[in-house]
Amino acid sequence: MTDNVRAALIIIGDEILSGRTQDKNTSYIAIWLNEAGIQLAEVRVVADNKQAIVSAVNALRSHYDYVFTTGGIGPTHDDITAECVAAAFGLDLITNVEAYDLLLDYYGEAAFTPARQRMARTPKGAELIQNRVSLAPGFQVENVFVLAGVPKIMQVMLEALRPRLRGGAKVWSKTVTIYTGESNVAELLTEVEGAFESVSLGSYPFFQDGIVGTQIVGRSRDKLDLEKAMSAVAAGCDEAGFEYEQPTDFA
Amino acid sequence: MTDNVRAALIIIGDEILSGRTQDKNTSYIAIWLNEAGIQLAEVRVVADNKQAIVSAVNALRSHYDYVFTTGGIGPTHDDITAECVAAAFGLDLITNVEAYDLLLDYYGEAAFTPARQRMARTPKGAELIQNRVSLAPGFQVENVFVLAGVPKIMQVMLEALRPRLRGGAKVWSKTVTIYTGESNVAELLTEVEGAFESVSLGSYPFFQDGIVGTQIVGRSRDKLDLEKAMSAVAAGCDEAGFEYEQPTDFA
Repeated sequence: MTDNVRAALIIIGDEILSGRTQDKNTSYIAIWLNEAGIQLAEVRVVADNKQAIVSAVNALRSHYDYVFTTGGIGPTHDDITAECVAAAFGLDLITNVEAYDLLLDYYGEAAFTPARQRMARTPKGAELIQNRVSLAPGFQVENVFVLAGVPKIMQVMLEALRPRLRGGAKVWSKTVTIYTGESNVAELLTEVEGAFESVSLGSYPFFQDGIVGTQIVGRSRDKLDLEKAMSAVAAGCDEAGFEYEQPTDFA
Repeated sequence: MTDNVRAALIIIGDEILSGRTQDKNTSYIAIWLNEAGIQLAEVRVVADNKQAIVSAVNALRSHYDYVFTTGGIGPTHDDITAECVAAAFGLDLITNVEAYDLLLDYYGEAAFTPARQRMARTPKGAELIQNRVSLAPGFQVENVFVLAGVPKIMQVMLEALRPRLRGGAKVWSKTVTIYTGESNVAELLTEVEGAFESVSLGSYPFFQDGIVGTQIVGRSRDKLDLEKAMSAVAAGCDEAGFEYEQPTDFA
């Protein structure tokens, strides 16, 4: 087993918990981290509430290599992520001179309102994360990375902080679609997973246009083991007489 | 302030954490609970991993009125939710006679394989939750409701358990779209929120086809307060000369 680097994501936002907005950042971040050799191991969605945010940050930063947060760094009264991260680390919330100058230069003195000045606040000692879309930066404190909630901004912030991350081995994945119900392949999957320790197999039943089937997704940091395991799944299908698609790479 | 009933959701699934599947259950459950007068206050996405599931169940069931879980109750080796919930409550995992008979009747003796028999296991004393789509039931232990991950099945299970839930007051919501940047309305929102204690205001910037704007969503258990607050937002826009759409109900 090679080095396993694990991360957690905190999504800060009443709009997700109310059902108003469907979160799209999780799947993007999950795939992006995986490419970087980092496994997303837990996600929490919490309200725009100081106690909820502080306790999520503290629970997760001690447990995972990296913690990412999205949301709550804009100019309005409900944007409280900076003060919450400061509180979680026991740091003062200060006006970050670098961020202040950046925003002042962008807006000009007249338009640099108190609301916009809020976006220059960070915990003391935080390192900024560049935002090439709308300028107001994210920031990093130790292993916690504070990003915007707007997907496009969050995505450029991820690219900007990429060099600061230490990645482990990439996780490879392959998939096989089998045209039979999940319970028919359960035993086969148990066998194959038992035979290849580095491989984890997930099974996902589907019912589409009257067709019953199961998609099997295998994951491993060992590419060869994964290929052998997926071939074993295919061989098991041949033996049992299940129709299936040949294993393919899974993005 | 009327009775505030709060719930948490645990999404069990490697497929969400890997980015393979985009979760669609959260927004459905959030809206459904809100209609039932229950506020979704936290969501956790955890891996198909015993320790992760047990600790999420235990952390949340003591903290919220209700906990819902989705996923991990199918027939395969990675379906471990039943044993995890049993472990969280310190209960034995048993073959539930009611579920067993139901499934035996459905599949017939020959096709009722060991894999399918797994779906009849529940913690001892659990109450079943009917599944009118594919029969294999969910279950309830105290304030924890264990549901399928497949959206259509999860949804019928919610309907089936509805009579067991105690709802608080419904949360009303209204929205105003303002055609100006978020930081221009920040002060106005702070003022209005300060004036109406029962109302919470969220602000969501958007940039679409070259148009910059901010959507304001107000929520309250007090319908009249909410209407007054949103009128105050509109009046503030008139005063400042911002273009906006009249407040409308928000589903």
